[in-house]
This record gives sequence, structure tokens and C-alpha cells, in this order.
Amino acid sequence: MAEALKVGIAGLGTVGTSVIRILREKASDLACQCGRPIKIVAVSARDKGRNRGIDLSDVKWFDSPVDMAASNEIDVFIELIGGELNVVYEAVKKALEVGHHVVTANKALLARHGVEFAVTAEKKGIFLHFEAAIGGGIPIIKAMRESLVANRISRIYGILNGTCNYILTRMFTEGLSFKDCLADAQKLGYAEANPTFDIGGHDTAHKLALLTSLAFGTAVSLDDVYVEGISNISQIDICAADELGYRIKLLGVALETDSGIEQRVHPTMVPTSSMIAQIHGVTNALSIQSDLLGELLFSGPGAGGAATASAVIGDLADIAKARPGFQYAPVLRSPALGLSPHKKARISQHAGGYFIRLNVHDRAGVFAAVARHMADNHISLESIVQRSFIESQIIKTIILITHETTEVNVRQALAAIEKDGHLVAKSQFIRIEPMA
Amino acid sequence: MAEALKVGIAGLGTVGTSVIRILREKASDLACQCGRPIKIVAVSARDKGRNRGIDLSDVKWFDSPVDMAASNEIDVFIELIGGELNVVYEAVKKALEVGHHVVTANKALLARHGVEFAVTAEKKGIFLHFEAAIGGGIPIIKAMRESLVANRISRIYGILNGTCNYILTRMFTEGLSFKDCLADAQKLGYAEANPTFDIGGHDTAHKLALLTSLAFGTAVSLDDVYVEGISNISQIDICAADELGYRIKLLGVALETDSGIEQRVHPTMVPTSSMIAQIHGVTNALSIQSDLLGELLFSGPGAGGAATASAVIGDLADIAKARPGFQYAPVLRSPALGLSPHKKARISQHAGGYFIRLNVHDRAGVFAAVARHMADNHISLESIVQRSFIESQIIKTIILITHETTEVNVRQALAAIEKDGHLVAKSQFIRIEPMA
Repeated sequence: MAEALKVGIAGLGTVGTSVIRILREKASDLACQCGRPIKIVAVSARDKGRNRGIDLSDVKWFDSPVDMAASNEIDVFIELIGGELNVVYEAVKKALEVGHHVVTANKALLARHGVEFAVTAEKKGIFLHFEAAIGGGIPIIKAMRESLVANRISRIYGILNGTCNYILTRMFTEGLSFKDCLADAQKLGYAEANPTFDIGGHDTAHKLALLTSLAFGTAVSLDDVYVEGISNISQIDICAADELGYRIKLLGVALETDSGIEQRVHPTMVPTSSMIAQIHGVTNALSIQSDLLGELLFSGPGAGGAATASAVIGDLADIAKARPGFQYAPVLRSPALGLSPHKKARISQHAGGYFIRLNVHDRAGVFAAVARHMADNHISLESIVQRSFIESQIIKTIILITHETTEVNVRQALAAIEKDGHLVAKSQFIRIEPMA
Repeated sequence: MAEALKVGIAGLGTVGTSVIRILREKASDLACQCGRPIKIVAVSARDKGRNRGIDLSDVKWFDSPVDMAASNEIDVFIELIGGELNVVYEAVKKALEVGHHVVTANKALLARHGVEFAVTAEKKGIFLHFEAAIGGGIPIIKAMRESLVANRISRIYGILNGTCNYILTRMFTEGLSFKDCLADAQKLGYAEANPTFDIGGHDTAHKLALLTSLAFGTAVSLDDVYVEGISNISQIDICAADELGYRIKLLGVALETDSGIEQRVHPTMVPTSSMIAQIHGVTNALSIQSDLLGELLFSGPGAGGAATASAVIGDLADIAKARPGFQYAPVLRSPALGLSPHKKARISQHAGGYFIRLNVHDRAGVFAAVARHMADNHISLESIVQRSFIESQIIKTIILITHETTEVNVRQALAAIEKDGHLVAKSQFIRIEPMA
């Protein structure tokens, strides 16, 4: 058997300790599958004294991840610190520069610096793998990078944040408010104390920006992602959606349009009968549409120590098997120097159906005014529901489902309705995503 | 750019011609992703004169696939002839012996000779890839072989034959008989003129035998697969299942039990709310359950020229990227020489719930007799439905859903009921697969 692959791990949280535990428990099986042992030889974390329930006596401790990245005692640098702190950036950069393979779960870092890192990795002929960064244990990246090489991808969409899907699932199944669900998610450890990153859609945006690059061969462009979170989704929206045959999911969507690539993260209406509507709780899912395959769908655990460790070790195994020579390994499907510039399609040009909710004063002429503004903006309606979701004699809720129109039309119509003074509260609109 | 990967294709049916067409249409994009061109240099098929709509003037023609396999003009031998004819076996064997990488879509061949071929491929340090053999364009094999290395898999189940799923879907949605659906499937080209291989469950069994080896690290053992087809599924079964919250799917299931590995292919009751129940038409799907991931599900196109070609080209790309050295590449996840012997769990020991349908004479005491035989065989019942599905005063249909029991108990109970002379027709039973 060939000599061991020597690994250094930076970051010893849930994922890092899971990786170490699993590599040890399954050492002989993994060595058999990879043709050589995988050995943790070094670690780096903030607090050396902390008891993590794993024996670190036979591994070298580095106070600085950058020093570990530079060390010639490792073959692979695993980055599990997370976030965009400068030290994380420096450590990954250093590891690549000295020619160590890198495995990371850090979508935030890659969404900002992925292309720069990919250029270095490809120049050096080494691996920069990041399966754990998106979809937890679901092997999405490998599929897009390696299995789908012959496909021209036209659209991807997915549930990429377990926290949001958990909250939306409980709001639907139990009729709870957003606030109560969020509080519960925090109690159960599914949401952070500061949940903005998840519920604001930013975590999904990071992942989507990377998937977009993999799908379309374009440079990663996080700043071009349109982002809306789920905090303004109400029980009224969820109930009305259900009545009309829809579920509300926070989706990341990227697709090619005539004016460029749309990257959007927002609450989305999906047909109740669609596969994506059946993804419950913290589960993640990704749908890929392409010329050769029609639709491909993956679902599985999007987070958690074990699932994320599964992805990290899958990446390590690729590196362990690739010997004695290196393989040619584009990081983002297409070689980093050949990525085309990202051409953004503006959200105002987005074309699709819309769910619109208006809370209006119950007085004569309101409905006619609403209908007129829709017509003035060339919006034709598929369904109209007028209902008293709120117990009140003087407030009515109007729900509209539009046929395909553009975002600019919808926004103009709503501005005009608002100007008329008929609205009791801010209008709500949610984009409808068509399914294959 | 490195020199071209030289490919020979044996078999120029729908898949073979699709592979050639796509490799040509997307040549520059693929070369960019793989770091070198992929070039078709040789082909072999039965009829040289046939017009296939592709230009073969610049490729070398071989009348014999074995001669092409032996030729030093190719790097990769792609086998798309299919079936178990001796010439196919000889060609693949020859290609591996002379050190050519092999890509094949031939599940029948691999289910019989996969381990033997894997031993040769691994000894030579070459690739034997077969993504297209199972699940068409869904990258199942790569996920199991490469991404899930750290997982201990406990169960896999899937819809692996599009023909059967198409027929069962139409029987459900349109209320048609099995015979009518089969005739339609044949008209539309979804079923062969001789459909036994598909609807008898044998195609699924070939695929399952390979998946079992990938999942459990055991030698491929096709003869140990228990196989039942779908031809005895009636509208009554489908309607009764629907009423009770189930759909009927032809599943391939493999799982570890205390007495060995169960491999089964049979019509299966799955809960209507499960993901697998939402897989319609010719779509395939596979669920993998493991210690680290819980459940992972893939769905996508299981057949067709384009989808299968997508998988073949994905395999080719792996080979094109692996340079200048070869990588260590176990064919079946674990090295072929280290596969453990397959230990079969007998179907009679299968434990689970059962759907049982009895068509009985409508006379006093029948129901009591049925109930007594169930009790005598330690079978407890979850639901009992008595219904006149057949328009008749003298025949009643009794539907039973059992709690977990064993197959031997069910068979004994049904034999006893039959012996009593109460049955008008042969009893029907369908296994229920529990979902995570």
C-alpha cells in the first residue's frame, strides 16, 4: 500500500471533530477504498485547552492556521474555520501557494475568492475541493463538475438553507408564526443566535453564486445575486398559497435569459405537486435542468457534523486516489482562467408569474381600481381570491395570481395601487417558479 | 494542451450515435473542461452500410469489436452493444487485458462478469467505468463509489426501470389495465417488442446486483436477487393502495439484515407522501440510506440516447483528466480482490408489512376464517377493507394491511386460506417498504 496521505485540519468545531472521529473509526475501510491510509497529522484551532472529546496527543498543534498551511508536514490542508476572516483567506492562499491540496466547507470565502484560489490550484496542478460548502452531504459539486460535463445547463434551483426550510415547513404544518418558528429553531440549534445570515437569504446567496459558476462556466459573482429573506412571510401567505396549490420555499435560482444570467434568492411559490415542494425540514435539494438530461434532482441532509464530514472525506478520498501523478482538475468545472465574465440579468426584467397579496379597505371601487392598475401594466390574471383572512369588517385581503409578466410591471402596478390610498398595509408579492 | 484521448466505440445504436454527435458538437467545451480533446478514432457495429445520420468517414471501421478492443490505436474502449453475447464479453476482456480503459453501459454483462473485469482493470491501473449502466443520466455510480466513501450504507432502494414505472404511472393516473399500458408503451418505444426483460423485473435485478456490491462491498451476486415483475398488478390493487395511502412502484431494494443481504425486485407499496411515490413516468430514482447522511435521493432520466450519452461522456471525462499518471480507481467502490462474499438473506425471512388482497365467495364465515388464519400465523392487522371492487353479488374483495411480519408467515396463512376453499382467485400480496 502507498504511503499515507497527510492531512492538517484547521478548525475543530462540530465538523472538524466529526472528520477526525470518522477518519479514525473507519481508517481501514477508507485505506482500502483509497489505496492508502489517510492520516491526520496536524490541527489548528483557537483554543488548545478545550476538551473536544477526541485524542489529539499524536497530532501536531498549530496555533496559527497559516503556519499549518505552510508546513511541509502535510499534503492536504482542510479549512473548516468558516467565514471570511483575513486569517482564513491567508491560510488557504498559503496552502495553495506551497502546493498543498485544499479541502474546504467555506462557501463565504469561495464566493469571494474562489476564482483567485482556483487559478492558483490549477496552475499548481492540485485539488481545491469544496463539496461540503453546498448541500452538506449531497454530492452536488462532484456531479456538476465531473458527471455533467457534456450538459448545457439552462437552470438550477434549490433549497440550500436548512434553517429557512425548517421554519417554512413548521409554519405550514403547524400554523405557527415566523417568529415562533425562528425561536424554536434557535432552541433546537437549527438557527444561530444571530439568524440574519440564514433567514436573510445570504447563506443561500453564497452557495448559489458558486453553483452558478459551476453551471454556466462564468466567474463567481456574489454581488450580482438578488437576495430576499423569509422574514416577511406570513401565515396568510402560506394559507393562501396552499388553497391555490402552492407551497412557499426559499429557493436559490440561477438561469440563463436573453439579457444575461439571473441569480435570485427569495421566497418562491412552487406547485404543491412538485418534487421540491416535498422537501421538508432541514433537508436540502437541488434541481438541475440541462439539454441532455431534462431535470435531475438531488435531496439529502444539508448540514450537520456527520453529513458535512461525509462530504469532506469524499473530497479527501479523491485526493488520496489521484496518484502518482496529479490529475487535471478544474475547480469550477471550467478552467478558472477560461471562465467567462458574469453578465447579470436585472431582477426588474425577471419574467414569470406572481402571487400578489393586498390588504385593502373594504369599500366600493377598490377592486375595480386594483383590476385597472393591473390592466394598465399589461398584467393578466390567472386567479383572484378575495377573502377576510383577518377578522375584520373593514379590511379585505385580495390575492392575485398573475400570468407571466415582468417584475417591473408588477412593481409599477403595486406602486400605483398604493398611491390610490386603498392599501391598509404594504403589499406582498412572491415570485412563482415554473416547474418542468 | 495535452494530446487527444483516442476513443473507439463498439455499438452504434441510439446511445452510440448520440455519444458521437455530442462529442463532436461540444468538442471545444469538453476539451476545455478535460484539458485535452476527446476524439473518436474507431467504431465497430454490425452493419457498416446503415445510414446513422453521422459522418464516419474519418474514423476507422472494425467489423469485429474484439479487433477494435485489441487495437493500439485507441486509449478507451466504449462498449455500447449491450447484452451478454460472447463477443461482447470477449471484446471487453480483450480491451482490459491490453490496458485500454473501458466505459460501458452494459448492466447485464457487468452483473455476470463485473468482478472478473474489475480485478483486471485494477491490476492494470486502468478505469472500468459504467455510470450509464444504472439510472441513465443520474450520476449514481460516481456518488456511491467516490462521494460516499465514508458512509456505511444500510439500505438502497430505487425505481431503476423506466418502462415499469411508465406503465404503473399510467395505470394509476388513467385507470388503464396493465395490458393496455404495455401496448401503449410498446407503441411509444418505451417498451421492447419482447418486454419480459423489463416488466419481469430482470433489468432492475441486473442493476440492483451492481448497486448492492457498491453499497455493501460484496461480490456481485445476480443469482441471489429475488425477482417478481409487475404483470400481475391489477387496477383493484392500485385503487385499494390509493385508498389506503399507498402507491405501487417496482422497486429494487437491497438492505443489510441480521441473516445477510436482502436483494429484492418486486412491486412495492410506498406511502403516497414519500418522495419515491412522486417519481412518475420513465423517470428513475435511487434512495441511499447511510449512517452519516440519513437519506440521500437522486432522481432523473433513466434512459434515452441523450441521457445515457451524458453518463458515458462523464465517464470519458474522468479518464481524460486522469493524467499523466493513472489514479487508483476501485471499480466497485471497494477493490475487487477485497470484496466480501455475498451472504444472501432468504426472502422467506423478509420482515415487513404486507398488502394482501383476497377475492372470496361472499358467504358466512369467510371473514372469520381469514382472520383466524392470520392470527394462527402471528400476523396482526393494521387495516381491513372489505369491498366489492368487482361488480358481483357473490364475490367480495378483502384487503388487509398487516403490521410487520415475515414472508413465511404470510405465505403459510395464504396457503391455509386457499385450502379452505374460500378463494375465488389466486390471492395477491404486495410487500410494503417502510420509508425513513
